[in-house]
Amino acid sequence: MVINRDIKKVIRVGNVAIGGRNPIVIQSMAKVKTSDTGRVLKQISELENAGCQIVRLAIKDMDDARLFRKIKRQSSLPLVADIHFDYRLALAAIDSGADKIRLNPGNIYKKKEIKEVVSALRLANIPLRIGLNSGSVRGSNLKNISMPDKLVRSALSYIKIVESFKFRDIIISLKASSVLDTVLAYRKMAKLSGYPLHLGVTATGPAYAGMIKSSIALGALLLEGIGDTIRVSLAAKPVQEVYAARSILESLNLRSFGPEIISCPTCGRCEVDLISIVKKLEKELSGYSVSQLSCFAGKRLKVALMGCVVNGPGEAKEADLGVAFGKKEGLLFKNGKAVKKISFSDSINVLLKEMENKNG
Amino acid sequence: MVINRDIKKVIRVGNVAIGGRNPIVIQSMAKVKTSDTGRVLKQISELENAGCQIVRLAIKDMDDARLFRKIKRQSSLPLVADIHFDYRLALAAIDSGADKIRLNPGNIYKKKEIKEVVSALRLANIPLRIGLNSGSVRGSNLKNISMPDKLVRSALSYIKIVESFKFRDIIISLKASSVLDTVLAYRKMAKLSGYPLHLGVTATGPAYAGMIKSSIALGALLLEGIGDTIRVSLAAKPVQEVYAARSILESLNLRSFGPEIISCPTCGRCEVDLISIVKKLEKELSGYSVSQLSCFAGKRLKVALMGCVVNGPGEAKEADLGVAFGKKEGLLFKNGKAVKKISFSDSINVLLKEMENKNG
Repeated sequence: MVINRDIKKVIRVGNVAIGGRNPIVIQSMAKVKTSDTGRVLKQISELENAGCQIVRLAIKDMDDARLFRKIKRQSSLPLVADIHFDYRLALAAIDSGADKIRLNPGNIYKKKEIKEVVSALRLANIPLRIGLNSGSVRGSNLKNISMPDKLVRSALSYIKIVESFKFRDIIISLKASSVLDTVLAYRKMAKLSGYPLHLGVTATGPAYAGMIKSSIALGALLLEGIGDTIRVSLAAKPVQEVYAARSILESLNLRSFGPEIISCPTCGRCEVDLISIVKKLEKELSGYSVSQLSCFAGKRLKVALMGCVVNGPGEAKEADLGVAFGKKEGLLFKNGKAVKKISFSDSINVLLKEMENKNG
Repeated sequence: MVINRDIKKVIRVGNVAIGGRNPIVIQSMAKVKTSDTGRVLKQISELENAGCQIVRLAIKDMDDARLFRKIKRQSSLPLVADIHFDYRLALAAIDSGADKIRLNPGNIYKKKEIKEVVSALRLANIPLRIGLNSGSVRGSNLKNISMPDKLVRSALSYIKIVESFKFRDIIISLKASSVLDTVLAYRKMAKLSGYPLHLGVTATGPAYAGMIKSSIALGALLLEGIGDTIRVSLAAKPVQEVYAARSILESLNLRSFGPEIISCPTCGRCEVDLISIVKKLEKELSGYSVSQLSCFAGKRLKVALMGCVVNGPGEAKEADLGVAFGKKEGLLFKNGKAVKKISFSDSINVLLKEMENKNG
């Protein structure tokens, strides 16, 4: 099965293209004060190494907007300025070299102010994200309607204003803190607009719950072909958001960041400490950078580590490389064929060597 | 939005009803040798405390089948015997008091053997799970078709055999190691059969990837109204599978195991160490047992901990209880109304007290 992608207009953020048939783009946000430029740059560099493609920074005052220029000069990733309440911060951030501006229709809504920002965006030739959140959606005429409808209607009326200034370099996000509201809002929006969609769930709570909420909402939407760029919001370090985003995209065969490990959850049948070697292989692979991993992944390599004879030989055969363990030994499979017996303790080294051979 | 449930026949496993309009049932599996009855019973008890409702045990030989009786006598949860290769193990497990038998059509397929097992199931008045896995699906006539079709066709022909013996006390599972194959297989099956579906992804790999794969596949299916019972297979301790299952069901408002914490991922705007108090609140709540938590959850309590003024007041207002933090203080919201300022350090204690009041 290949996902039937909902094709939207292509929008460029720095050197990254979002929409059309471009791969789904991974974004995250720096989580330290923008004024602490050294720590911001460190987070940007960590994010880049993890596979993040665009980073957003909070611009909460004119000092932030000014320091944005310094960060931008040293960042190899495109940077988005996150603006709330004061449209002049957007103007200053554009002046400082922002690659995209995010405005929140919940707190910057005066036509005159939007017009000024749009003029500056056009001059700088950079796009606008119209970014709604369930926590700040606005409009007295929206009182008795559902959250998804609030988000969609509010976005549509904002788009209308921006388009009235002949500006169409737009990305939309409609993040709710509820999975169901998020899914419904994006589904509606995907039908009503041709602009690319930035997917996310907002205010997801503790990191563990957040990962599950984001996986369900983003997973369900991506499965329906909806979504051009994603951010997994987690109450955790920014790189954790990128690892989760990678894993969501990999699960749906939309992106690849290295080999896939297939392994059973183990049960009373398992005679070896399978979980320990799954962790070991995972750790070995985490030592590779994204660029090294992606060379494993022309076609994504599938490596199976299976604990018994029930599904072991079957999954190992289906994988590019696999070991089906018995009591202390395992049977190595390559491209669907049983090759030789290997010992439990040798198995990781044998697999890593085989992977490098496949790669070479 | 309420999910429109696909209504299937009700099947009983011990005192647990699966299908119909019954809440989605959470299952897991013991991961120690069945012969180690003490450790198995310990895992069952941990699983029960976490909210698991049915536990499966691997029965790999006649010793396991015999010891199953001893475990069953001391277990307060219904127990399923997981049978492969040898149908006589099913007969012995039924004799030992199993509450359900899982057969794998990939390795027990002779009509005569199925007939014997079905006769014993009927006599004991317990159901059968026809449990397929992508790693052990069988049939030379299924060579050139897709994995979802292999799983569905193989299940349908097995159901036909079982029904030919006038037995209809059946649950179906079609677990693939690929998210897309799993979703497609269950979607097809849901249309073709009225038996309840046990959802799961098999051989999900490392725990982290497994949680994301399971969240996407199970989440997408549950969102479509498909699925009556779930197991999240993880290369981790059994209770971790239950926590993940809980979180998936909670994310879709299908079950509730305590208050929902809403909190922002933080960014450069946040002036307090929000992540630390989110973790603290999460930890305080983890001290409650499932039965204590469910009394918080007549209507699921929503508690918001927000880090700034952008979405803070909005999310706090939407929640039953909420704090929107500024520099060092926060504004406490109750039922949508701002009540008073509280200090950062007091906030968790204030919230816990308010939660107990709401509960009382």
